[in-house]
Amino acid sequence: MLDVITAQKAKEILECHFFDAFKNEITQIDISDCDGHILAEDIVANENLPAFNRSTVDGYAVIASDTFGCSESLPAMLKFAGKVNMGEHCNITLEKGQCVYVPTGGEVPDGADSMVMIEYVEDYNDGFRYIEKPTAPGQNMIFKCDEASIGDVMIEKGKQITPKLIGVMASLGYSKVKVYKKPLIGIISTGDELVPISENPDIGQIRDVNSYTLASLIRECGAEAKPYGIIKDDYDILKATVEKASSECDMLLISGGSSVGEKDSTAKILEEVSGSELLFHGLAVKPGKPTICADFNGKALFGLPGHPLASFFIFSVFVKPLLLNMAATDNLIKTAKATLASTIPSNHGREEIMPVKLTENGEAVPVYNKSGLISVLSDADGYIIIPRDCEGLLKEQTVEVILF
Amino acid sequence: MLDVITAQKAKEILECHFFDAFKNEITQIDISDCDGHILAEDIVANENLPAFNRSTVDGYAVIASDTFGCSESLPAMLKFAGKVNMGEHCNITLEKGQCVYVPTGGEVPDGADSMVMIEYVEDYNDGFRYIEKPTAPGQNMIFKCDEASIGDVMIEKGKQITPKLIGVMASLGYSKVKVYKKPLIGIISTGDELVPISENPDIGQIRDVNSYTLASLIRECGAEAKPYGIIKDDYDILKATVEKASSECDMLLISGGSSVGEKDSTAKILEEVSGSELLFHGLAVKPGKPTICADFNGKALFGLPGHPLASFFIFSVFVKPLLLNMAATDNLIKTAKATLASTIPSNHGREEIMPVKLTENGEAVPVYNKSGLISVLSDADGYIIIPRDCEGLLKEQTVEVILF
Repeated sequence: MLDVITAQKAKEILECHFFDAFKNEITQIDISDCDGHILAEDIVANENLPAFNRSTVDGYAVIASDTFGCSESLPAMLKFAGKVNMGEHCNITLEKGQCVYVPTGGEVPDGADSMVMIEYVEDYNDGFRYIEKPTAPGQNMIFKCDEASIGDVMIEKGKQITPKLIGVMASLGYSKVKVYKKPLIGIISTGDELVPISENPDIGQIRDVNSYTLASLIRECGAEAKPYGIIKDDYDILKATVEKASSECDMLLISGGSSVGEKDSTAKILEEVSGSELLFHGLAVKPGKPTICADFNGKALFGLPGHPLASFFIFSVFVKPLLLNMAATDNLIKTAKATLASTIPSNHGREEIMPVKLTENGEAVPVYNKSGLISVLSDADGYIIIPRDCEGLLKEQTVEVILF
Repeated sequence: MLDVITAQKAKEILECHFFDAFKNEITQIDISDCDGHILAEDIVANENLPAFNRSTVDGYAVIASDTFGCSESLPAMLKFAGKVNMGEHCNITLEKGQCVYVPTGGEVPDGADSMVMIEYVEDYNDGFRYIEKPTAPGQNMIFKCDEASIGDVMIEKGKQITPKLIGVMASLGYSKVKVYKKPLIGIISTGDELVPISENPDIGQIRDVNSYTLASLIRECGAEAKPYGIIKDDYDILKATVEKASSECDMLLISGGSSVGEKDSTAKILEEVSGSELLFHGLAVKPGKPTICADFNGKALFGLPGHPLASFFIFSVFVKPLLLNMAATDNLIKTAKATLASTIPSNHGREEIMPVKLTENGEAVPVYNKSGLISVLSDADGYIIIPRDCEGLLKEQTVEVILF
């Protein structure tokens, strides 16, 4: 018999044992390779940006007050004092009554405080330009330091890197950035009934699905997966593999062998690995009761159910938050509010994880399944949690769906 | 002057010219490498799953009717007829009054129609087992074909591969799957003012931000980016690079040189590349007016604004849907409903793209910016579109936010 603990208690144990134990290593990588990584440094402006007053249009730099009151019928006549070339410093200082041509992105000369778009300027080749629309100070230009001044923190460390942040980093001249190394997570599949997925299972055998789903779930959390393959139900071989993997990896997931059957040796091994402390064996959660966790010198060693669906859910509910914490981000669990499409009865005295499908009009439809039927995952968009000691959820009740 | 067209018209042109023109190549890859790829085949069950009646618990296979009416004080006494080992076929045929031990995942013998969990069975070493709780037919077991029968389509082609789908594919024995090859998208940055991001810009120079943001945006759409570097404003060199890139890639993005300034030669080149047809030059969109598109034998060649922010938005609004279509998926544009936190005036006669920040209570706060200020992107979570010929949006109005 398993001495089960509640989901809440298990979460507290995990948080207390592991949330502060893991120290991410830091590495520096090229910004072309940093999509999805977690920033390990603040991105600080090391210069003023822009470093000069910059035009945002093709047109003429002017002193705005020179254009006040002008119109198509009475244009402001300004002396053409030269042009600015892209990529070159402008030596002209604009004086009252003058204008200078500046292309988009070019430097607006000293003295000027506004840009008039080329569309509103006539050129009759007489050394003057005729401005047909008044402009206000600051229009069509960006002033020095508008984007950033030296020392400004533009992105705080801990953020996951997306295209928009790559833009900010590139603007500030960061060609390399410090990111957290991905935590390395070992996966062991155990069970005499398991065969590689490329083989046709005989009667009594099943494919090793968990090595693949767990690896993909791990990668989705921003960590790296290291599969150790299928290990037969042999105490010595399994123990040796667990010892090797738990010293090589930052966390270990063992799927299968976590129940109390005659050949389920995972719990025994997790207790007997030197330096390991068994934290719990058995959760009041459906599906996922035969779940084990041990603390190996601050590393979490999990025994997950062998059933693919139970293993998928236990990962999502208990392992994922821990892994996101290790990967130094917590912004990957996405939820959505929805209206329950039908009443779900429940009186198990244990927390129940129920897969649901989301409809276009915001309803959550329960996807009923028997434990082990991973094919329901192709229908479900996420899951809801039915609390322990609750008699179920009512139709039209608002629920929070945790999205896959 | 640009002869601008509306955003709506531009979208129609893009759809009509390019949505059906691109034919994805198909490649076969290992399921360990297929995260995020787009399925190019239906995933079909090639066998019955499970292939045998399977237990979902450790316990005893029984004929359910043998247990009806039993209790702790009056257990059902069943003859122990043997045990099933994991991974082995079971030769026993269960008869009335018998039970067989089956571990989780093991084969339930012929004749049995239910599993009793080990917790409800007593063993006094007398050749019998004492069942203390009645069970119903079908309980704690999965019948043959419950997951899939031969020929069932389990996942339809076109879906993006996620952990849950990897689980389904692994269950069905797919160790390799057919996916679409990622479209290859060329990026050219042009402008004499551009310097590599690792350099400190002189006065009048700016860093080549767009090569990096566009590459990251392209990768986010499931395509591959091929940067051609910074090309100076030299007609011949730029033309040669455009010709090379448009023959090598499936789409080309040229950022900069798309306006009507003296050195803006992108439009001219896109017209003069042999086999290319200029579709539009100028959009009634703010920011992003100087946008160009040409059709080169069914490939889209874009001239994007040089301003990093305008280029980011034009990509998001016009290029991204095209790219998602090429990558054979359309499920990557995420939106959220929100309440506008303040009134936004607008009367430009052109569509306006306004970045917004989402608050915790579901409000969208406009992030005002001058074109070119990519640092606003570190604050914004997405953008809203203010329609053309609309006088603005009102405070507390519900808006659709397109998320970054």
